Amino acid sequence: MAEEVILLDLWSSPFGTRARIALREKGVHFDLREEDLPSNKSPLLLQMNPVHKKIPVLIHNGKPVCESHIIVQYIDETWGPESPLLPSDPHERARARFWADYVDKKIFPAGRTAYRSTGEAQEAAKKEYIEGLKAVEGELGDKAYFGGESFEEECPKLVRWAKRCMQRESVARSLPDQHKVYDRMSEIRKKVQAQ
Amino acid sequence: MAEEVILLDLWSSPFGTRARIALREKGVHFDLREEDLPSNKSPLLLQMNPVHKKIPVLIHNGKPVCESHIIVQYIDETWGPESPLLPSDPHERARARFWADYVDKKIFPAGRTAYRSTGEAQEAAKKEYIEGLKAVEGELGDKAYFGGESFEEECPKLVRWAKRCMQRESVARSLPDQHKVYDRMSEIRKKVQAQ
Repeated sequence: MAEEVILLDLWSSPFGTRARIALREKGVHFDLREEDLPSNKSPLLLQMNPVHKKIPVLIHNGKPVCESHIIVQYIDETWGPESPLLPSDPHERARARFWADYVDKKIFPAGRTAYRSTGEAQEAAKKEYIEGLKAVEGELGDKAYFGGESFEEECPKLVRWAKRCMQRESVARSLPDQHKVYDRMSEIRKKVQAQ
Repeated sequence: MAEEVILLDLWSSPFGTRARIALREKGVHFDLREEDLPSNKSPLLLQMNPVHKKIPVLIHNGKPVCESHIIVQYIDETWGPESPLLPSDPHERARARFWADYVDKKIFPAGRTAYRSTGEAQEAAKKEYIEGLKAVEGELGDKAYFGGESFEEECPKLVRWAKRCMQRESVARSLPDQHKVYDRMSEIRKKVQAQ
């Protein structure tokens, strides 16, 4: 039976990007379906993720998997055991999971607050964001794997890591165009500042 | 070499309870070290979880594992493959992870807000808490595994599940005494209401 793999996604989502990279690292062919968010969710999205109603959702032969860190683990356990995404040692695997969880709990919320707020709240969020990145930079240390230009001075190793990642086709093809992301965030900023 | 397994814990923590149950389900002998929180964290806790400085922390032969859902997976991958904690099918495993994540993201925060707030905020949090439990009740359906007396009317299947769980020694020994928990929460409530 031919496999059916669908990814319900949004081009600018860092969580969707995670799923895209994982699928491409494993060489899985998939049907990427762009959702019209937040106002026009597809019936398929509402049916497949009735609890959170959020992308990304991976639909494998009709069965949904939700939440990007869970999708990545599902992909890792389902396809291409010869090219694992997580380390094989249980302790190293726990460590990788810890830092992915740290990004979700600390860095993403701080980044989101930083570009959706103004004044003191924005300054506090920016500080938290940079501190979060520095903690990840510390974990990366001198390893090869584990941004943006403006963070180069604060976190040079993280930036070099991001550049290495961009040399992988799975990553380069999965990340949204940076100018498009910049334009989208600028629109949000304008709305925030007009409030 | 004899294994050294230490759990840095707090008797009332639902996250610590997760780790305790998992270790006991696997029959792992461990040294449970109660932390004096929040004001008097041990040097070992600060050293082993420098990022979040929170319990539970599992220390296995000197190496720390943090975050309760990651600890549970580590325990599952390290000990007793003959009695797995997670389902063997990748899709069922993703589903189990989804609901554990749902508890962390929705139910726990709502419950915490409910007993630390008053008035309208408390009513809203209570409603969210019950809705969260009902979603989990829906997922449990007619299965055997997957609380509290006052929820019996709203979520009868969940309550029966909780009672089944309490018949397992790993659970019964790991849960804090309910009267002690009630007293602790009452103290917090008094402080909230005095504000």
